[in-house]
Amino acid sequence: MLGLMQDWPLLVHRVLDHAATYAGDKEIVTRSIEGPVRRTTWGGIHNRSLRLAKALTKRGVKPGDRLATLAWNTERHLEAWYGITGAGGVYHTLNPRLFPEQLVYIANHAEDRMIFVDLTFVPILEKLQDQLKTVETYVILTDAAHMPQTGLRNAVAYEDLLTEADDDFDWLTLDENAACGLCYTSGTTGNPKGVLYSHRSNVLHAMAALQADVLALSNADTVLPIVPMFHANAWSLAFSVPMTGAKMVMPGQKLDGESVYNLLEGEQITMSAAVPTVWLMLLQHMEANNLKLSTLKRVAIGGSACPPVMIQKFEQVYGVEVMHAWGMTELSPIGTIGSLLARDRKKPFDEQLKIKSKQGRPLFTVEMKILDDDGKELPRDGKTFGHLVVRGPAIAKGYFKGEGGQILDEDGFFDTGDVATLDPDGYMQITDRAKDVIKSGGEWISSIDIENIAVGHPAVAVAAVIGVAHPKWDERPLLVVQLKPGASATKEDLLAYLDGKIAKWWMPDDVAFVEAVPINATGKIQKLSLRETFKNHVLPTAGRAA
Amino acid sequence: MLGLMQDWPLLVHRVLDHAATYAGDKEIVTRSIEGPVRRTTWGGIHNRSLRLAKALTKRGVKPGDRLATLAWNTERHLEAWYGITGAGGVYHTLNPRLFPEQLVYIANHAEDRMIFVDLTFVPILEKLQDQLKTVETYVILTDAAHMPQTGLRNAVAYEDLLTEADDDFDWLTLDENAACGLCYTSGTTGNPKGVLYSHRSNVLHAMAALQADVLALSNADTVLPIVPMFHANAWSLAFSVPMTGAKMVMPGQKLDGESVYNLLEGEQITMSAAVPTVWLMLLQHMEANNLKLSTLKRVAIGGSACPPVMIQKFEQVYGVEVMHAWGMTELSPIGTIGSLLARDRKKPFDEQLKIKSKQGRPLFTVEMKILDDDGKELPRDGKTFGHLVVRGPAIAKGYFKGEGGQILDEDGFFDTGDVATLDPDGYMQITDRAKDVIKSGGEWISSIDIENIAVGHPAVAVAAVIGVAHPKWDERPLLVVQLKPGASATKEDLLAYLDGKIAKWWMPDDVAFVEAVPINATGKIQKLSLRETFKNHVLPTAGRAA
Repeated sequence: MLGLMQDWPLLVHRVLDHAATYAGDKEIVTRSIEGPVRRTTWGGIHNRSLRLAKALTKRGVKPGDRLATLAWNTERHLEAWYGITGAGGVYHTLNPRLFPEQLVYIANHAEDRMIFVDLTFVPILEKLQDQLKTVETYVILTDAAHMPQTGLRNAVAYEDLLTEADDDFDWLTLDENAACGLCYTSGTTGNPKGVLYSHRSNVLHAMAALQADVLALSNADTVLPIVPMFHANAWSLAFSVPMTGAKMVMPGQKLDGESVYNLLEGEQITMSAAVPTVWLMLLQHMEANNLKLSTLKRVAIGGSACPPVMIQKFEQVYGVEVMHAWGMTELSPIGTIGSLLARDRKKPFDEQLKIKSKQGRPLFTVEMKILDDDGKELPRDGKTFGHLVVRGPAIAKGYFKGEGGQILDEDGFFDTGDVATLDPDGYMQITDRAKDVIKSGGEWISSIDIENIAVGHPAVAVAAVIGVAHPKWDERPLLVVQLKPGASATKEDLLAYLDGKIAKWWMPDDVAFVEAVPINATGKIQKLSLRETFKNHVLPTAGRAA
Repeated sequence: MLGLMQDWPLLVHRVLDHAATYAGDKEIVTRSIEGPVRRTTWGGIHNRSLRLAKALTKRGVKPGDRLATLAWNTERHLEAWYGITGAGGVYHTLNPRLFPEQLVYIANHAEDRMIFVDLTFVPILEKLQDQLKTVETYVILTDAAHMPQTGLRNAVAYEDLLTEADDDFDWLTLDENAACGLCYTSGTTGNPKGVLYSHRSNVLHAMAALQADVLALSNADTVLPIVPMFHANAWSLAFSVPMTGAKMVMPGQKLDGESVYNLLEGEQITMSAAVPTVWLMLLQHMEANNLKLSTLKRVAIGGSACPPVMIQKFEQVYGVEVMHAWGMTELSPIGTIGSLLARDRKKPFDEQLKIKSKQGRPLFTVEMKILDDDGKELPRDGKTFGHLVVRGPAIAKGYFKGEGGQILDEDGFFDTGDVATLDPDGYMQITDRAKDVIKSGGEWISSIDIENIAVGHPAVAVAAVIGVAHPKWDERPLLVVQLKPGASATKEDLLAYLDGKIAKWWMPDDVAFVEAVPINATGKIQKLSLRETFKNHVLPTAGRAA
């Protein structure tokens, strides 16, 4: 027997309708690519998204068509998402940090019919367009006055495209499971694979993200999404912010410390979200200029593990609460967030810091457990680490066009590829990527744990730990270090620094110094490349094993 | 093209699983019907709900079966909801305040197979059981030691029922649109009609209710749901509280001021929800005994309009934020809630109070508009009032067994039967029930607006305004007053009190004094009965029209 409740599909346009109806005059501010700050409102975004959806429909866009964006966070990018999906299309975010050959592969694989592109990235596409076989139209996210001389096929200025239609348009009524967004993951092996979000998953994920123990956004907030819309679905903010009717500030392309600081203060931001690299630039800028933050209350930090010292500075020096989050493109993306339990909020800061350095607790709609190599569930004791698997309505069940094959286990769980501990309170801590775990004598050593400590040494800029072959233990850890410019440290200094902070048997068997630790497009250490570099490295301990 | 996200139906058991996994040791406290305070945890509730679901399955409960509860808010009532739905059944809440013939009608209409009943209500059912044809089993919500002598068919103590199974049970996997809960509305005309919630509507509604601008619950809260589970789906709290893992305190049957105060202080409640009558008793108790509140931060007040003086006392005297809410059984039930917009929080308290006296703003998932008698949308100007219609995924599309016929308009909106204004910021204010609006010379007069002001007169206990026939204006308002015990006031006193507070043409043409204004089972003024009483009332102004 079915319930008798209304059939009201969860469609992302309903979010924008809500914002326009109940926060129609709330400001959306953009530091534009052209230069000046532009101001509109949720009402304005709604109106222009309707016009875009109608213009795209007139140009023949059909439900399910993929239309790509290669753009910074601006109000036009936001309108593009809503306009595309309102016409039944799928927004496909291209990451400008990818190598050209990856961009070509991805756009062709997605069969993008259009690309909405910022002025910044026009030159990139001009070089690639001969290889982009499916792209019929390039929409330059600017107006006629700023339109560049370009050889891009059927190039049209975004503002001109908007003049092709009025706002008398009804969003397409779609199945809530209809495809809505597409974002490729940059795997370290193999080709990028596309995660295909549905309207339902985007709406549910935003609703889950808004809760008081997650992002806790309210209409009183002013939100600065620094995390790019091309990175992991913008951590839900393109949907969760309008769901509350909060003011939104789009930073454009300038993400350096000074530019971010000026936006935070100038627009009285209360909440922001970014990867640690961005926050590091901000903290350095504020420290160098002896600046304070007057309105910022909360920051979400994710994308890679947040160093404890960053949490400590935000909370103790600047009075800003850190929400340490973990997620993946495949999870829409938020999996866990570091809001403290009531009882933990009463603990001394040092203890809170230890807990906040973990990746937080799962939101409702994310089921999570850890498994051993045989698929057996491991205890939630905060010590045992295992393969982290997840299940939920905003988690991928497969990749676009079936790439990568079956990705769920027989219980429907997705293997994140991460290795983690879960503690009895639900806090999760990533200890490693599964492929980066060092297997020493049948036991697992977490490379990330050691890296997090090593990077605390004052001379260390980047620390990476990889497993190197060892005749007796199979693998032993090698610490690879990139020193800060002008700094110096010896192997002995670094090992002495680690001594006592990690288990004896986790101590690296050797330290190697490099000019630069290789980093990929999304800011992660390229361990595959490091392992290749050091594959013949002979550990000083190797001889003893003979 | 469909998205590629996991099929994870929104089922209420997943909420309880989440609470048990991530807040398994968080306390659930009950002031028991037997007397002593009982303490369990979300882990305990989860375990016992599993056992109940298994025991019910062994006793032949099948998906879609309706199992009723006639019970106060206790942990056992909560377990009954989850145990019933976990076995695929539908919890059906019977309201003990209904007249016996209504209870009989409702239980027979629902075809309840079992009734879970508190000790308090056993005598009621003993008298009615011969008429309850479909009820096979009566589960007395107690243990063997407290089991009464009873002639109820197949009576079993709840705790004995739980011993019939262990907790090795998998919740039934259901379609998320499967029926989950059933609650009858007590219409003033016709038979009560059943609203049939689905798993999906209950989960979505709880997710919407948790947001920062709605109930804003977090795991740090301790929540006291005074609003009965038999009243309008307990305002989502049976689902939204475990979704956060907050501590929950169940008040049992004692809802007087002293009992509620003792729970608030003794269990360090931070958030509670109840109808104005309950809060009035609490405020009177605190005033009479010069008491303060040390932990309570927020109260949700709904069910009937909250008098401004109540909001003022909570906020200014006791430092408790009032969330004035409006809802209906058909809306799961929350439709709007009075969290202030950022800009309104900066206003002087008097202005805030005016805004908070409105019913608040719609949550995301509730679409709302006002229509004239011809179905044309009216402006959102805060002045024009019209029929309030709503649409959303947790709003009824029809009543159980098709009673009442088609209830949605062609756009899928449900007519709430209320008349309201909507202002440009989204605040909604109920001005009347549609059938209680007074139509004077083609214009509408809001009976509720006048009542709200009249009840502010120090001598008035209850004020009701109804339309009485008038030869010139069709209808004119009559103010019906029940004075406070020992108080006195004349017609002239009351009209003078209203003068200047309402439009001249809204001024009642007469005042009638009664011993008691009739109130129905859910605390609402029975205007139908009043209109019957005064149908031949001759207004002093009637002669002038001749």
